[in-house]
Amino acid sequence: MKAAIYEKAGKMTVAEIEKPSLQAKDDVIIKVVRACVCGSDLWGYGEDIHHDHGDTNSGHEAIGIVEEVGEDITTLVPGDFVIVPFTHGCGHCDACRAGFDGTCDNHPGYTNWGNNYQSQYIRFHYGNWALVKIPGQPSDYSEGMIKSLLTLADVMPTGYHATRVADVKPGDKVVVIGDGAVGQCAVIAAKMRGASQIIMMSRHADRQQMALESGATAVVAERGEEGIAKVREILGGGADAALECVGTEASIDQALGVLHNGGRIGFVGVPHYNNHALGSTFAQNIIIDGGSASVTTYDKEILLDAVLKGDINPGRVFTQTYSLDNIDQAYKDMANRKTIKAMITVD
Amino acid sequence: MKAAIYEKAGKMTVAEIEKPSLQAKDDVIIKVVRACVCGSDLWGYGEDIHHDHGDTNSGHEAIGIVEEVGEDITTLVPGDFVIVPFTHGCGHCDACRAGFDGTCDNHPGYTNWGNNYQSQYIRFHYGNWALVKIPGQPSDYSEGMIKSLLTLADVMPTGYHATRVADVKPGDKVVVIGDGAVGQCAVIAAKMRGASQIIMMSRHADRQQMALESGATAVVAERGEEGIAKVREILGGGADAALECVGTEASIDQALGVLHNGGRIGFVGVPHYNNHALGSTFAQNIIIDGGSASVTTYDKEILLDAVLKGDINPGRVFTQTYSLDNIDQAYKDMANRKTIKAMITVD
Repeated sequence: MKAAIYEKAGKMTVAEIEKPSLQAKDDVIIKVVRACVCGSDLWGYGEDIHHDHGDTNSGHEAIGIVEEVGEDITTLVPGDFVIVPFTHGCGHCDACRAGFDGTCDNHPGYTNWGNNYQSQYIRFHYGNWALVKIPGQPSDYSEGMIKSLLTLADVMPTGYHATRVADVKPGDKVVVIGDGAVGQCAVIAAKMRGASQIIMMSRHADRQQMALESGATAVVAERGEEGIAKVREILGGGADAALECVGTEASIDQALGVLHNGGRIGFVGVPHYNNHALGSTFAQNIIIDGGSASVTTYDKEILLDAVLKGDINPGRVFTQTYSLDNIDQAYKDMANRKTIKAMITVD
Repeated sequence: MKAAIYEKAGKMTVAEIEKPSLQAKDDVIIKVVRACVCGSDLWGYGEDIHHDHGDTNSGHEAIGIVEEVGEDITTLVPGDFVIVPFTHGCGHCDACRAGFDGTCDNHPGYTNWGNNYQSQYIRFHYGNWALVKIPGQPSDYSEGMIKSLLTLADVMPTGYHATRVADVKPGDKVVVIGDGAVGQCAVIAAKMRGASQIIMMSRHADRQQMALESGATAVVAERGEEGIAKVREILGGGADAALECVGTEASIDQALGVLHNGGRIGFVGVPHYNNHALGSTFAQNIIIDGGSASVTTYDKEILLDAVLKGDINPGRVFTQTYSLDNIDQAYKDMANRKTIKAMITVD
């Protein structure tokens, strides 16, 4: 089969590799319909840190058709159309029952366990509860709907996770930090949960515009102290919740700065820092909460339904589409911010 | 008037100083009935860091009688019996309205603003909303009830705060880290909120016993990895909430260790560390939330009523009583763990 592999620093390519096969009783083999590139896929792209195919850095978001199921799989049959999350919740441990399947107690970590979603086939581990069935077949849906369904593998549940852990409630004043695909989805999620004001912090006109179309009530281009002052001016005080969708210490500081005391940070930007001054959250009574999204829980409970009804349109984050053969261009364009999120068609 | 002052490292004494007077329009002068010693009062006790009377380190918990009120005070009149919190919420900012008056946006910080509660009189700043009226007069209450009322100035609301920010719900499995007065009150609060299992981590028989009398369902004397394993054995897995009532990095680590993924830390131990590895909370999807307690909110909404009805008996944390003249012995006995919490009678 064809699969995207890391060739060298700054260069993805497509190679012919062995098609995966069932190995465990709860494995599922999935034929990929669409995959995409995540901001986190870019972390090692420009650096010479990945050498062998399949280690990491080659996608963890897809939708596809079930090709084959292990003998313990009771929830799916070949031919089913599914969302392929980046998470692998078991569905019955304490973490999953608390709605935190992104950090399942039985399947810790949230990687694709050495599998590459930017390829023709995926071996999905622990498939019984985690995979989410989509009604019908791909041909039943418009391209716009296909895009929104694809967001349900990661970015839309991750944006939703930020609002859930920050406990965004009707009437809340919310600030979104990060204007990438996850930040855009966080705007959608904040609106779903009834936020009365949603400020997107963004310096890019196209991303500002997208956020406004998704429900943001204002955009703030300034950063640092100036950005904090601007947010406070618009809100007439501090925000109730800050959704941190970047993962840097600067963005955590931005989040701490825009909140009133007793405010809440939901952080879903994978931390690019080792430590943060927890003492400062104590002094402000700030809730700080984050981690890997509960993809399966949110998809099953709320997001798939909202997408299928047309209530939300997260698919707009896919501003460009590329064939699998053109994977390197997809990475390049995302790295250069020419596309917000790159969708990959797989034949 | 008489007031406890810091004499030198390891030595408190009582001196005659000027009685405080009204200075701001929302000041209240209170005649102290009972004060007490907080664990945090001990931090500078053994060290030569406090030189002048009244800087800090001389109490922030009391009950007393209103002696005089500033012209903006509408809520109290001379003669009223009141809880004197360590917090000074305004009652109408975003933080107070969100129930975080311990970190009021208008009166940041949570000190006694240079006033000494271990004395005959207190000047209480911003008194209109923050002071909590107790029905009747001190003579209407038993000594046991007086003790419980005194806990409402700090330790009982602080223990309650841990359970509130950790969102302790009916049926939750809860671990309390810290067997001092706040930890003991956290046990009471966890029971109030319906926790099904409450494990107190304590190595002292008297404190273990007190926790069991207040609603703990088990005690664990082990610490570190051994303690974590013991808790997990008792609970058959991780806890839903950990209440960190110490303030050291080790106790935060203990809290992180006993939780299942997606668990919740309420931390009210004033941090004795500058940083903590927030990254590790991300990997576990741990909620981490803490800060200064909402004394006024909790007292008015739930705790005063629970004490007066006899539903809870937090006053049992006062294992010894001392006269103000004997203040140094109170500090010494707390520092040497001879008493869990020292009550101070003031004539």
